[in-house]
Amino acid sequence: MFKEKDFIYIDYTGKDKNTGEVIETTIEEEAKKAGIYSQDKKYEPQLVILGEHRLIKGLEDSLYTMELNEEREIEISPENAYGLRDPAKVRVLSIGELRKQGVTPFPGLPVRFSDGSMGIIKSVSGGRVYIDLNHPLAGKTLIYRVKVVKEIKEVKDKIQVLVKRWFPGVEQLTTELSEDQKVLKVIIPEKIYLETDLQTRKLLLARDVIKYVLEDLTVIFQESYTKSLINQ
Amino acid sequence: MFKEKDFIYIDYTGKDKNTGEVIETTIEEEAKKAGIYSQDKKYEPQLVILGEHRLIKGLEDSLYTMELNEEREIEISPENAYGLRDPAKVRVLSIGELRKQGVTPFPGLPVRFSDGSMGIIKSVSGGRVYIDLNHPLAGKTLIYRVKVVKEIKEVKDKIQVLVKRWFPGVEQLTTELSEDQKVLKVIIPEKIYLETDLQTRKLLLARDVIKYVLEDLTVIFQESYTKSLINQ
Repeated sequence: MFKEKDFIYIDYTGKDKNTGEVIETTIEEEAKKAGIYSQDKKYEPQLVILGEHRLIKGLEDSLYTMELNEEREIEISPENAYGLRDPAKVRVLSIGELRKQGVTPFPGLPVRFSDGSMGIIKSVSGGRVYIDLNHPLAGKTLIYRVKVVKEIKEVKDKIQVLVKRWFPGVEQLTTELSEDQKVLKVIIPEKIYLETDLQTRKLLLARDVIKYVLEDLTVIFQESYTKSLINQ
Repeated sequence: MFKEKDFIYIDYTGKDKNTGEVIETTIEEEAKKAGIYSQDKKYEPQLVILGEHRLIKGLEDSLYTMELNEEREIEISPENAYGLRDPAKVRVLSIGELRKQGVTPFPGLPVRFSDGSMGIIKSVSGGRVYIDLNHPLAGKTLIYRVKVVKEIKEVKDKIQVLVKRWFPGVEQLTTELSEDQKVLKVIIPEKIYLETDLQTRKLLLARDVIKYVLEDLTVIFQESYTKSLINQ
């Protein structure tokens, strides 16, 4: 049994119950078997902080009732996955309108509208193009096979997990947690001083550590300059 | 007598020796008298760190030989001001070319070229427009009336001057210089954590303090986050 703010790692494979089609997986072998393997994706157990709501509701809710190393198959209703399908969320355009924008419409083609919304062309007939704005998985019941493969318990390890989340690949970043766990000092390495999103990443790291690890913590970020650095 | 890295404040008024026209001044009354007063400009003594080369050479060079509260009139040759005039630096365009870009040419109009260079229309005749690319003050001998009104001597005061240079209007920024003057800690106030040029300003403040005040200093910048800040 896990509780809110627990840090766990899970492996999972999700399928469309109706078609059996694999929609996502953290396991390389499963991705290859299903023909959805991508070289750009990292296949490895995924960090879940319970209460973060980064997963679909049905999957995250089930995790609270599981144990470390337990594997389970879960059926998730559309309401607890990607929502119900709204038949009203269909736009109809003329073929001409799309052609003018350089798009040759065919079923299955994703379309982005100027307001940012996405749709998928469902059908083309009689000069008209029917575009479905529902999430592609809306209305579908899903089956997830999920295993809790690891739990992070120590405060220091949780902090490291969050550092890796917001500063991936930045090996030189060091942290010092005070004895009384009231102050976390984060030493930023000079090579990222001028990265444009540095301030945002500091804020997000501090937010996550305070929200999920030590709520009364003060997170202090330090950068230091010396003559040799200035003269580079 | 001042030396390199001294911090002084000067008031000055510079004129074109030939025409007597005032070209720049730090004194409000002089600006009004000369008809060049601008509401956007702050009329106040200007900080000079000797060796920074932010002033024209002839003016900065003279300051080394002056005393506090001394006032002096200096004649500066073009070579020590804005350079000699290069007669080859003139472009000729047809009136038609300029009109096409929406410009109605007349003498005195400043023009910016697509490569970023600036020029001033000298004359328009026979369908041709003559544009001078020399600095408007090139070739001119200048007369500066200059007074050294203040000197900053204390290390701590110099640091404050530089803080004000790079973080103007940021009253809440505090600094702590260690007893041995080896470490300067700069506490950044939260209201500027997300300003886009924060990292550049930190670098420039550290650079100036190390270059002009304490060369073996380590400048440490600190930002801290707590629950109340995260939840804002």
